[in-house]
Amino acid sequence: MRLNQAGELTLLKKLKDSFRSADSGVIIGIGDDAAVIAPQNRQLLVTTDMMNEGVHFDLGFTSAFQLGFKLVSVNVSDIFAMGGVPKYLFLDISMKETGTTEFFDELYEGIANAMKIYGLSLLGGDLTGTMNDMALSATVIGTTEKAVLRKGASVGDKIYVTGTLGDSACGLELLKKMRPEYKEHVRALRSDVSKKLNGQLSFANGPSHITLDFVSAGPLIRRHLMPLAREASSIAGVAASMIDISDGLFIDLSRICDESGTGARIYLDRLPLSDGLKQACGALGLDALRFASSGGEDYELLFTAPADADMTGICATCIGEIIEKERIAVDASGREEELKAEGYQHFGAG
Amino acid sequence: MRLNQAGELTLLKKLKDSFRSADSGVIIGIGDDAAVIAPQNRQLLVTTDMMNEGVHFDLGFTSAFQLGFKLVSVNVSDIFAMGGVPKYLFLDISMKETGTTEFFDELYEGIANAMKIYGLSLLGGDLTGTMNDMALSATVIGTTEKAVLRKGASVGDKIYVTGTLGDSACGLELLKKMRPEYKEHVRALRSDVSKKLNGQLSFANGPSHITLDFVSAGPLIRRHLMPLAREASSIAGVAASMIDISDGLFIDLSRICDESGTGARIYLDRLPLSDGLKQACGALGLDALRFASSGGEDYELLFTAPADADMTGICATCIGEIIEKERIAVDASGREEELKAEGYQHFGAG
Repeated sequence: MRLNQAGELTLLKKLKDSFRSADSGVIIGIGDDAAVIAPQNRQLLVTTDMMNEGVHFDLGFTSAFQLGFKLVSVNVSDIFAMGGVPKYLFLDISMKETGTTEFFDELYEGIANAMKIYGLSLLGGDLTGTMNDMALSATVIGTTEKAVLRKGASVGDKIYVTGTLGDSACGLELLKKMRPEYKEHVRALRSDVSKKLNGQLSFANGPSHITLDFVSAGPLIRRHLMPLAREASSIAGVAASMIDISDGLFIDLSRICDESGTGARIYLDRLPLSDGLKQACGALGLDALRFASSGGEDYELLFTAPADADMTGICATCIGEIIEKERIAVDASGREEELKAEGYQHFGAG
Repeated sequence: MRLNQAGELTLLKKLKDSFRSADSGVIIGIGDDAAVIAPQNRQLLVTTDMMNEGVHFDLGFTSAFQLGFKLVSVNVSDIFAMGGVPKYLFLDISMKETGTTEFFDELYEGIANAMKIYGLSLLGGDLTGTMNDMALSATVIGTTEKAVLRKGASVGDKIYVTGTLGDSACGLELLKKMRPEYKEHVRALRSDVSKKLNGQLSFANGPSHITLDFVSAGPLIRRHLMPLAREASSIAGVAASMIDISDGLFIDLSRICDESGTGARIYLDRLPLSDGLKQACGALGLDALRFASSGGEDYELLFTAPADADMTGICATCIGEIIEKERIAVDASGREEELKAEGYQHFGAG
C-alpha cells in the first residue's frame, strides 16, 4: 500500500499503539502537542542526529530495517559517550508520498528492534512528506548521575578504545565494490549477531573479482549498516573524558585534545583490528590501518582514564597516552609522525 | 562563500560561539556528544517538528530569515499549547554542499531572532549535507508545573481561540497568486510587526489582476511565512484542554474531542476574522470562513475552559461549547451542519 492511501493519522495511530511507554518517568508519551516527562533528580542528556538519503545512506544496498536500526544506534551512541543511560526517543521521518507502507513497517521494525536492545521508549515525533530524498532525524534523551565530557583528559591519562576499529568504513567500501547480485543477501542482514553467516560474497577488484567468506565480510558490512552502540556504564566509572568514534579515530581524538587542551601519542600497532578487516584488506589490497585511524561510523567509544584507574572488568584496548601538546602517531618501527585529524566532515573544505 | 569552502566545523564553531547559554539549568550546551541539563523539579515538555523544502516551504518566496524564524515558532507553539515555557532548542539542518554561507547566516539570523523572542537557548544539533532539498528539524524542550493536555475537555466547557483564524492559509494563497515582481518585497518582511508596511501588492485573478494595500495583505503573508507562537501562561491557569492550531481549526478541535471523548458545537459567525482576511477574500473572491475553519498554520491556541472560569485578562474569543457527542457547526442563520475534520494531512488519503 502506498503511504498516500494510508494517511498520516493512520500511521501515527499505529506508532502510538505500538510504542506505549511503561516508563514511570513518562507522564504523556506520543499523542499530545509535546511529550511530558518527570525527571527524577538526575542530569538529563539530549542529543540529535540526522540521516539523509544519498548522503548518509543508499537505499540501493540498505534495507529499511537496517536504516531504522542505525538511526537509533547513532543517537544512542552519543548518550553512551556521555556515560548515560538512553531513555526516550523522538523521531522525525520524511518520506515521499509514493513510499510504501511495507517500507514504513520495515523501517519501524528496525527502530523497534533497536529500541528494545537499548531500552528506549518512543515519546513523539513528526511524520511528514518530502519531494525527493528521505530525511530522518532522531532525538534521544538519556539520564546520568554525572556526565563524562570530552574536556576531562589530563596529561598521563591512558587512551583506550572499545571493540575494533575501521570495520564500518571497510564495510562501506565492500558494499561499494560488491557485485550487484549479492545485494539481497546483504539487505537480509538483521541485528541478531549470533545468527550464523553462511556462503560467500564477491567483490569487484579492478577488472577481475575477489571472493570472501560471508563469515569474514558480513560482520564488516553489518557494522556499517547496523552499528551497535557500545554500552558504557562500567567505563563511565573510570573515564576522565570520552567521545564516540563517529567521524574517525584521529578526528575524534583531536576533539578530546582540543577540549582538554592536551596532546596525545597513539601507537598504531596497538589499534585493535578485527580478523575480518585484515582478511578483507589483504584480499582487496586495502589499507587496514587507514580504515582504523580515519574511517568513520564505528560507534566504538574512545576514552581516557588515569594510569592507575582500576580497569577490572572493562573490555577496552589501550592505544596510547595523553601528553602535553604534540599529537603524535608512532608506527610499528617506532617512527613518529604528526597525527592528522582526518575524517569525515560535511561541507568539507577541499 | 559556498558551504563546501567553509566546512562543517567552522560553521559549528560559529554557532557555538554565538549561542552560549546563560541558563543556570544548562551544564553543557553545544560542543559535546550530548547536551547536559539539570531540570529543577518540574515537568519537562519535549516536542519535535520537521520542515522540508518543496513540502513545507518554497524558497522561491520564503527568505532564509523567515524560514529560520518559522522553524523555531512551530516548535515553540507546541510547548505553549501544553501551557509550558520554552527553554532549550536543538537543530538539525541539512543543506546542499553548494548552498552559500550567506544563506546559512541569514537562516541562523532568523533562528536567533526567534530564540530571543521566546527566550530559548540553543544546546545542540546536527549540521549535515543533503543531495537535493533542504530538510530542517528542531526539537524544543520546555518546562511546566502542570501540563495542559488535549484530553481535559468536559461537557459544558466553553471553547476559545486566541487571535484571528485563517490568516496564514489566506497568506499562502496570496503568495501563490502574487505577481512575481513583488517577491523581493515579501522576502524582505522581518519579524518586527511594529514596522510600517507601505505600498501595494498585485495578485493574479483569472486573466486580470487585483491590487491590495500591503497594510492589509502584508500581515496575512507574514503570518504564513513567520508565524508568532502564542504565549499561554495566563491561559494555562484556566484551560482544561488545549492544542495549537497547526492543521486547521476543525481538525485540531476534533483532536481535543477525540482525546476527551466529547462532542463540540461551534458557531461559525463567532470565528474571529481579521480585517485583512476579509478584505483579501472580498477582493479575490475567496471563502474567508473556509480559511478560518480549515486553513492550517495559524499557530493560534484552541482551548476549553469551564463556563465559570475567570477569564479576566485573557484575550481570546469564545466560539462554542463542548457537548456530549455530536460535532456541529452552526451557521449565521442557525442552521446546523456536521463539523468535518478537514485540514492538512501528510500522505493524505484521497
